[in-house]
Amino acid sequence: MKLLRHGPIGQERPGALDADGQVRDLSLLVPDFTPEWLAPDKLRALTAIDLQRMPLVPQGSRLGTPVAGTRQFVCIGLNYRKHALEAGMDIPKDPVVFTKAITSLAGPDDDVRLPEGSEETDWEVELGFVIGTQARHVPRDRALAHVAGYCLANDVSERNWQARRGGQWGKGKSFDGFGPVGPWLVTADEVPDPQNIPLELKVNDQVRQRSNTADMIFPVAEIIAHLTQFMTLLPGDIVITGTPEGVGLGIKPTPVFLKRGDVMTLSAGPLGTQRQKVV
Amino acid sequence: MKLLRHGPIGQERPGALDADGQVRDLSLLVPDFTPEWLAPDKLRALTAIDLQRMPLVPQGSRLGTPVAGTRQFVCIGLNYRKHALEAGMDIPKDPVVFTKAITSLAGPDDDVRLPEGSEETDWEVELGFVIGTQARHVPRDRALAHVAGYCLANDVSERNWQARRGGQWGKGKSFDGFGPVGPWLVTADEVPDPQNIPLELKVNDQVRQRSNTADMIFPVAEIIAHLTQFMTLLPGDIVITGTPEGVGLGIKPTPVFLKRGDVMTLSAGPLGTQRQKVV
Repeated sequence: MKLLRHGPIGQERPGALDADGQVRDLSLLVPDFTPEWLAPDKLRALTAIDLQRMPLVPQGSRLGTPVAGTRQFVCIGLNYRKHALEAGMDIPKDPVVFTKAITSLAGPDDDVRLPEGSEETDWEVELGFVIGTQARHVPRDRALAHVAGYCLANDVSERNWQARRGGQWGKGKSFDGFGPVGPWLVTADEVPDPQNIPLELKVNDQVRQRSNTADMIFPVAEIIAHLTQFMTLLPGDIVITGTPEGVGLGIKPTPVFLKRGDVMTLSAGPLGTQRQKVV
Repeated sequence: MKLLRHGPIGQERPGALDADGQVRDLSLLVPDFTPEWLAPDKLRALTAIDLQRMPLVPQGSRLGTPVAGTRQFVCIGLNYRKHALEAGMDIPKDPVVFTKAITSLAGPDDDVRLPEGSEETDWEVELGFVIGTQARHVPRDRALAHVAGYCLANDVSERNWQARRGGQWGKGKSFDGFGPVGPWLVTADEVPDPQNIPLELKVNDQVRQRSNTADMIFPVAEIIAHLTQFMTLLPGDIVITGTPEGVGLGIKPTPVFLKRGDVMTLSAGPLGTQRQKVV
């Protein structure tokens, strides 16, 4: 299924995309896609709902993040060789891990607001996944069973705050709205191979990033195995898995950053598309 | 007031310390110290309760973290000059910010479990504070109004995972149980100056850290002003403010780390004491 949440910010209701690509409201049956609704038996139960019999949501309704109640928003850095090189960093031997504030989460098409005084706000298209069952010390071969589903994400990053404000990377990644996720969560049963998903990002119709999750250094299963060695992942936690080459910081000879009025368009095959205006 | 939560892990109930230092149960009046209970009017209402008329909690009952439903656990690094020097790091110009997984949160006296294979698990006594009202772009002179209260914390850190596993610092800080907080939250009205709180940590009766929050490079008000420039802090969020000199990593000529059977004892004047056995 393609699970989603629709409605104004802070008042989202659960829904799903039907076979015709129309948004159906599920709020008469499901209170919200809170962490407990991501358990395998709950997800299986949702497939029993005949979407054609659920109310249509008006076209053009805003979408929010596809899950509610996320407690941890974990990010992998430098997970594509060419991106590590363009960033001037070594190829990592272990996954690079940082976090975004959960208050950076946003809907897939919400405006991205430039921080006051920012001159280095950048884009990063990424594959994301959402945890369905608590995960601690999970071996790689059982890791994917903990994934409720996959989604598209933009790890918006302010490079000055990320690199030169005396902190760890999270500083440049945590501004409100810097974490668009969605449009929907594609449940794991519909994603036979998370390592074969195309990723593309355009800024104003110019393709800036084009890759495939096949190029990831640490695939999803290895990321989960690594993370759960040193932390417990909870249902509803969102993990985004790193961006491929083509970020603004890497453009030669002069980096290019976002400015007011730019439009970012992201796509990831079956995971759908995002479109954010920079304001 | 000194707010606390008592009971077995995962089944904690709200309580408070009375004038005689006895633990009183508040669960007949308060469901739990969830974020909405940290708002100023709620905290004021709690002071109307005559603790002497509330049930006594049996002595020796376990205490949990003093607040429930924490969504972000934010940490400041290198916030004492001598600690930055012993760690071989520069004195920061801006606060160094990282995060611990919220799943690392633990009660003040819970055992600390060494990660499998760990040989470099270290202690860090710190002043913590808990946010009472949402904070975004808060100027320094209004920052302390967003604090619900103060607490003692141990930022337990595995130095190998922190420094040499290819990540940001959070990796070494996020193991389950690596974030003991408590014993109680001293509400801000009872802490006239958060920059005058003694901190001490002993390992097996040997004093390893002894300092005062007066020595912090970035005081609490400045930390809040800085954090809220790039992220929104939510009620219930816990921020810990950095450790003074005397960590195991800094001991010359040979660093000393925790081993099974060690006991850490932490104290912070009015904020109370913690005692953790290493297992």
